[in-house]
Amino acid sequence: MSRAKELTKQLLRQFVDSFDTILFDCDGVLWQSNDVISKTPALIAKLRDMGKQPLFVTNNSTKSRRQYMEKFAKLGFKVSENEIFCTAYLAAIYLRNILNFQGKAYLIGSPGMQEEFKLFDINYTGTGPDPVAGEVEDWVKIPLDPEIKAVVIGQDVQFSYKKILLAATYIRDRTVSFVATDHEGRHPHGAAKIVEPGTGSIVSAVETAAGRDALVLGKPHKFMVDLIKEKFTLEPRRTVMVGDRLNTDIQLGKNADLHTLLVLTGVSKLSDVDSNLESSDPTDRECIPDYYIESLTKLTEYLSDF
Amino acid sequence: MSRAKELTKQLLRQFVDSFDTILFDCDGVLWQSNDVISKTPALIAKLRDMGKQPLFVTNNSTKSRRQYMEKFAKLGFKVSENEIFCTAYLAAIYLRNILNFQGKAYLIGSPGMQEEFKLFDINYTGTGPDPVAGEVEDWVKIPLDPEIKAVVIGQDVQFSYKKILLAATYIRDRTVSFVATDHEGRHPHGAAKIVEPGTGSIVSAVETAAGRDALVLGKPHKFMVDLIKEKFTLEPRRTVMVGDRLNTDIQLGKNADLHTLLVLTGVSKLSDVDSNLESSDPTDRECIPDYYIESLTKLTEYLSDF
Repeated sequence: MSRAKELTKQLLRQFVDSFDTILFDCDGVLWQSNDVISKTPALIAKLRDMGKQPLFVTNNSTKSRRQYMEKFAKLGFKVSENEIFCTAYLAAIYLRNILNFQGKAYLIGSPGMQEEFKLFDINYTGTGPDPVAGEVEDWVKIPLDPEIKAVVIGQDVQFSYKKILLAATYIRDRTVSFVATDHEGRHPHGAAKIVEPGTGSIVSAVETAAGRDALVLGKPHKFMVDLIKEKFTLEPRRTVMVGDRLNTDIQLGKNADLHTLLVLTGVSKLSDVDSNLESSDPTDRECIPDYYIESLTKLTEYLSDF
Repeated sequence: MSRAKELTKQLLRQFVDSFDTILFDCDGVLWQSNDVISKTPALIAKLRDMGKQPLFVTNNSTKSRRQYMEKFAKLGFKVSENEIFCTAYLAAIYLRNILNFQGKAYLIGSPGMQEEFKLFDINYTGTGPDPVAGEVEDWVKIPLDPEIKAVVIGQDVQFSYKKILLAATYIRDRTVSFVATDHEGRHPHGAAKIVEPGTGSIVSAVETAAGRDALVLGKPHKFMVDLIKEKFTLEPRRTVMVGDRLNTDIQLGKNADLHTLLVLTGVSKLSDVDSNLESSDPTDRECIPDYYIESLTKLTEYLSDF
């Protein structure tokens, strides 16, 4: 396995001819938090003109597809709702279509996840603030909801000790499903000094208390690609996955047999590619993108001559 | 390595003659939550009469030594404060004596830990409720305390998302120490159905967000035994560790070269000993107690003839 190739202007024709469908991660790729990465809306428009199908695959579980639509529009992108595959949607559709879910979900998640659950007519409880009250002797008597048949975890800024307790208690029953949107430990915050904890940190707390691992639906799990295949024609060898994280985006590409392009505007650096090449873990060693490019701004500029 | 021997009445003389010091874990060994395990106060008294030194080593970080004294007294034990080694005390003395700590600690912990920190004159912040307020754009501007030079994690029922964020942010600076009292994922609750999350679940959340591992001071780390050696004469080969958990109590015994006795009134079962014997992990295979006994009630009865 060799190091990723830089996607230069010389390699552009070969790259463009290699795909019909192009999957984009969003944060760190098309935008950084609320700032669009220059010229990426033009890139999406240009790809459509060229007959390519852009699709959007994000592990972020804080927004519904509708909320993502609003964000895309606000940042100047022309995107339709059915092109968006976010993990709030993924969790709801997994429960509805794969588990044929009846009963109620204990949901550690965001208002965006609630919106998707409502759209799919899934009963849930657990969202919003839930701090402890009283002593441990009181919690022992905490009322449990016998209708709970799944624990679902996404990003939740109101995560609390009591939520760990309830989630871990519900999944003691092995017939209760245990799913998570993603396992990202943290999110970068540009120049800001803070570490924004990801869903992965919440999931780890519950997994440790429960002694049981969640089924993680988001990237790099190929469920995202399976879902796309139900709605779009997707030929893996004619598809490129574009992302900023090796262990989610690029790994998804490998898991689903797609071509891969790493952009350097987000989490992973070229030095991380080198670390993967030298890793003792075979999964890391396999996780090398086919191409890398500094940013999609550069790709937009290259494509302007096409 | 063979299976643990049952500590029968026939083996009692050999057992008693083998030690001068006997370390007891507390919950699941001497009591279960707030119920004393029958005849254990008499056992401690009897051991003293026989010239043995009992000491008490617990990973529970919710109580100070003073608070433990009260609990021992309430349950009918005669124990002095300097015989108690709990992890609230361990964390404070580690900062004071090992780190020669200056500055302030960001403390995720209990009122018991606060009491020990005050006794050792360690400045701290972070305890009590701390839920999120506002949007992520606000947290980016969260004021950080430049005096923080350590993040210390113990059991905290007021654990929250914002505490993960602050802890992970402080330990981004590798010169900031990162210590935890213990790594127990959960605590049993007798017949009750709830899972009580342990410090380990809190630590996992922060470790995952930070991408950095805590130094865990409690059992099975032998720091507990090092601390005892500063205060008492302790000859490892003349010492028995009595506990209900293989991966903390019995592992501490192995790590510190002590004799070990497993009681079956708490977390680990005889089937867990069998699992360890068959484990592919060499640490598990090593972690087999010398003896086991159903409960300390039985040991008290055996000893009544001595």
